[in-house]
Amino acid sequence: MHHTPLIMTLFSGGMDSATALFRCIGEYGPEKVIAVSFRYPSKHNAHELKAARAVLEYLSPHAPRHQLVDITSCFEGFKSNLLQSGGEIPEGHYSADNMKLTVVPGRNFIFLAVAAGLAESLGVGKICIAAHHGDNYIYPDCRETFIRTAGESIALSTEGRVTLASPFTGMTKNEIAYIGKNLGVPFVLTRSCYKNQEKPCGKCGTCTERREALAAIGIVE
Amino acid sequence: MHHTPLIMTLFSGGMDSATALFRCIGEYGPEKVIAVSFRYPSKHNAHELKAARAVLEYLSPHAPRHQLVDITSCFEGFKSNLLQSGGEIPEGHYSADNMKLTVVPGRNFIFLAVAAGLAESLGVGKICIAAHHGDNYIYPDCRETFIRTAGESIALSTEGRVTLASPFTGMTKNEIAYIGKNLGVPFVLTRSCYKNQEKPCGKCGTCTERREALAAIGIVE
Repeated sequence: MHHTPLIMTLFSGGMDSATALFRCIGEYGPEKVIAVSFRYPSKHNAHELKAARAVLEYLSPHAPRHQLVDITSCFEGFKSNLLQSGGEIPEGHYSADNMKLTVVPGRNFIFLAVAAGLAESLGVGKICIAAHHGDNYIYPDCRETFIRTAGESIALSTEGRVTLASPFTGMTKNEIAYIGKNLGVPFVLTRSCYKNQEKPCGKCGTCTERREALAAIGIVE
Repeated sequence: MHHTPLIMTLFSGGMDSATALFRCIGEYGPEKVIAVSFRYPSKHNAHELKAARAVLEYLSPHAPRHQLVDITSCFEGFKSNLLQSGGEIPEGHYSADNMKLTVVPGRNFIFLAVAAGLAESLGVGKICIAAHHGDNYIYPDCRETFIRTAGESIALSTEGRVTLASPFTGMTKNEIAYIGKNLGVPFVLTRSCYKNQEKPCGKCGTCTERREALAAIGIVE
């Protein structure tokens, strides 16, 4: 039953990680996949976790196991407008300089370090992260160089038992949307907006990027 | 006043990290140093934090700032005998195979990732960790290869604003003890034992290693 190792995929509830999740399920089967979501004090966290649960419910009764890891206390003292303790979420395109205010220092680094330790404990052989090219401009821990060294750190800290896959590194969000469409990802259930409000604002960097990517595959929300 | 950047040193309350702390203070001055301790669910955590506070009190009124970061919830589901949720702490020398039960998967990885994000937020330019050669045999995330890639990950995730120093990589614990002695580290206040008991057991791997290192500098506890 358990000859191929388990795969863990980081699943925020956004469109990129939902696409990564569907890709993992397609490749390994739902019984081999663990979707890991993090509870952390971003303004939009409760909304994205709700979206994550909605996507998994959509997959029911063949949904993968879902593990929610609470890492709230790690971010004590961190400065970022994405966090509940920070200022307003800026509006505009990701390429705008003010969007840098939404960087949470080392967020993916922390996600990956916790995931690596948990993966070892659960017998997981591979961790999948949906970092992509479009994030690179402002988020240092989405860039290919970071992902590569983080992958080496994961492999070395687990003596090679856990490796990192980052299938969307080098892709644009439009390309991910196209892959997700072909995999049947229910994008309507996913959540991107950085703001703490039920209805996405449509104005922040991630709302803007999402709208452009979905438009490229013919979806208008 | 603040022309040289701050330095953050991971400080468990053990003899190695106490030596690293004294070294940082000697090099940069106490006002430039932030000692970071982690609250996490190891059996000995409360005892080591008590030791950390005792060492800092010893340095008073010229003690560096102390920041305690609670990362307890990160370790939910982790398997290790070092954790409160795990089995008994094995006794014997580190080289014994049963000591591997005390590995907490990715512990230093998580420490460093959280430290990197916090460092960015606090304006810290360098993180210091006291990993050393003697730990290497069983702890993958103390090895030079891991520390090097983790350092690259830190630099990349902070766009070079934060770097990692690991001054004891390649040294033995005896050498660290010798350095600590010369720096005036009050080893009697430090704590090494992995067990959850007031008085160190004297039998676990870290008690054994500590006894040997202190004997090398003429201290018998």
